[in-house]
Amino acid sequence: MLVYIAGSGAMGCRFGYQISKTNNDVILLDNWEDHINAIKENGLVVTGDVEETVKLPIMKPTEATQEADLIILFTKAMQLPQMLQDIKGIIGKETKVLCLLNGLGHEDVIRQYIPEHNILMGVTVWTAGLEGPGRAHLQGVGALNLQSMDPNNQDAGHQVADLLNKANLNATYDENVVPNIWRKACVNGTMNSTCALLDCTIGELFASEDGLKMVKEIIHEFVIVGQAEGVELNEEEITQYVMDTSVRAAHHYPSMHQDLVQNHRLTEIDFINGAVNTKGEKLGINTPYCRMITELVHAKEAVLNIQ
Amino acid sequence: MLVYIAGSGAMGCRFGYQISKTNNDVILLDNWEDHINAIKENGLVVTGDVEETVKLPIMKPTEATQEADLIILFTKAMQLPQMLQDIKGIIGKETKVLCLLNGLGHEDVIRQYIPEHNILMGVTVWTAGLEGPGRAHLQGVGALNLQSMDPNNQDAGHQVADLLNKANLNATYDENVVPNIWRKACVNGTMNSTCALLDCTIGELFASEDGLKMVKEIIHEFVIVGQAEGVELNEEEITQYVMDTSVRAAHHYPSMHQDLVQNHRLTEIDFINGAVNTKGEKLGINTPYCRMITELVHAKEAVLNIQ
Repeated sequence: MLVYIAGSGAMGCRFGYQISKTNNDVILLDNWEDHINAIKENGLVVTGDVEETVKLPIMKPTEATQEADLIILFTKAMQLPQMLQDIKGIIGKETKVLCLLNGLGHEDVIRQYIPEHNILMGVTVWTAGLEGPGRAHLQGVGALNLQSMDPNNQDAGHQVADLLNKANLNATYDENVVPNIWRKACVNGTMNSTCALLDCTIGELFASEDGLKMVKEIIHEFVIVGQAEGVELNEEEITQYVMDTSVRAAHHYPSMHQDLVQNHRLTEIDFINGAVNTKGEKLGINTPYCRMITELVHAKEAVLNIQ
Repeated sequence: MLVYIAGSGAMGCRFGYQISKTNNDVILLDNWEDHINAIKENGLVVTGDVEETVKLPIMKPTEATQEADLIILFTKAMQLPQMLQDIKGIIGKETKVLCLLNGLGHEDVIRQYIPEHNILMGVTVWTAGLEGPGRAHLQGVGALNLQSMDPNNQDAGHQVADLLNKANLNATYDENVVPNIWRKACVNGTMNSTCALLDCTIGELFASEDGLKMVKEIIHEFVIVGQAEGVELNEEEITQYVMDTSVRAAHHYPSMHQDLVQNHRLTEIDFINGAVNTKGEKLGINTPYCRMITELVHAKEAVLNIQ
C-alpha cells in the first residue's frame, strides 16, 4: 500500500518511520522547507530508543501526485483544512483517511473532503519530539485506537489497524473510539491551556489547590457537553485518568506551553477548550471555564502578536 | 487633630505628606523596617510635582500610643485585620476611621474593631509611587469620595472631608459612596487580574478582541452581584467608565501586575474578583469568570511559591 503522512512533524515522522519498516511505501508530506531539505539531503535522523538514519521520500502536499491507499493526518488542528485542500489530487475513491489529530470536531472538517465510508477517526498516546529539521527523537511506547466512521465499513478500519500493528504501533480497532478521543481532549483541555497561561509544568499546576479546582470544573464542562452530544463519558473515570496522567507527566510542559510560551506560535485552543465552548453554545449548555480559558489564550496570542 | 496613616506605602505617604501641611498632626504607621529607618533618619523625600524633604514621625503600628482623632487605613487588603489588631491601643471612643483601601468587603472587617458610627468608607483616584524606602513620587491630581457608614453621623464625615480638603486632597462627602467603591473595584477586577496573568499593559489587553469579551463578562458579574446586594450600579455607565480608564491608563501595568509578576508578592485578588465570587455564592449568583480568574491568580501565586 502507498501511505502518505499528511503533516510530518514529530508524530508524523514516528509513524512514517515505523511504517516504512513494513512492506508498505511511505511518503512524508510537510510544508517546512528546512525539514524537507534536511530529509531529502541526509535522510530522517532517528534518535532515542533506536539510532538510525533512513531514506524517506518527503515533499510538499501540493507536489504529491500518486493516488494514496491511506493518508494519515497529523497536521496541527488549524492547518487541517488547507492540508485537505492541498492533497485533493491524491485522494481516490478508495483512499482511506485516518485522523489522529488532537482535539475535537475534526470529523466535520474532513467530511467536507472525504466520503464518510473512507474516514477513520483515531486517538493515540504515542509521543515524539523534533530536535530540529530532519531529526526525530522517539522514546517510550504508545498505542492507538481507531474506528471507521461508517459502521458498514469496519473492514477498512481493521485493515488499517493490521497495517499499523505490523509497524508495531499497537493499534486497536475500537467500536467506540469517540469517548477515547474526548478523554484525550479533556487531558489536553485541563493541562495545556492552564500550564501555558501560568507558565508552569503539569506537576506545578496540579500541586496547587486552586489549579485542581479549575481542572475539575473544566472536566465537568467537557463531560456535560460530550454527554449532551451522545458520547459515553464517565466524569469520575475521566477525572481519575486526568489525575493519573498528571502524575506521569508531572515534569513536562505540555505542547501548548511549547507553542505559546516557548515558540510564540498559534495554539490549538479552538479545537480543545474552544471546541467544547462552541459545542456547548449550540446545545444551550454554558461552559464559562472553557470559554474564559479560550479567551485568555487568544488574548495572550494577541499580546504576543502571534498571527 | 491627630491623624494616623495606618499603612504608609505610596498612597499613605501622599496623604500623610499633604495633611502634614495643614495644622493637624500626622503620624505614619508601617511595618517595613527600611522605610521606617529611612524616614526617621532623612525624612520623607517627595519627588514629582514638588521636590521636598519633610520630617514626619513614623513608627510601627504596635508602637503607637496616643489616642487618634482620625485613622486613615491604607494597608494592602490582606493586611487590614492585623493592622486593626495592632492599633487597638490608639482607638478611642471618638476615633474616626476612614477606609480608602481598594476592593470590596472591608467594612465587614472594620466593624469587628470599630463601632459603626465611627467608620467612614471612601474611594480615591489619587495615585502615588514609592521609589524606594522613604522616597515617594507624587504626580498628577486626584480626588476622593467618602461617606459615614452611620447615616446619623454625617457630621463626622463632613468634618473629615473638610480636613482632607485643607490638605488639597479634593474630598467630597458622598451620600452614596458605595456604588463608587464598586465602580473602582470593577476597574481593578477587569484590568488588574487579567493584565497580571497575561503579563501585559492595560492597552494591550483592551486591544485584544478576546480581552474585551472577558472584560465585559467580568463587568456583568460585578454588576449583577452588586445589584443583588442593593448597590445602584448601571452596567452601561460602568462599562463606559472602564473603557475610558483603559484609554487613560493604556501604557500602565496595573498594581496586581507589579505584585504578582514584578515583585512576586501576594495579590489582593480575594478582595476584588474573589470578593464578587464569594458574595455571589452567598446570594446564589454564579460568577464563573470572577471565580476562575481568582483561581488562576492563586494558582500562579502557588507556582511562584509566594506565601
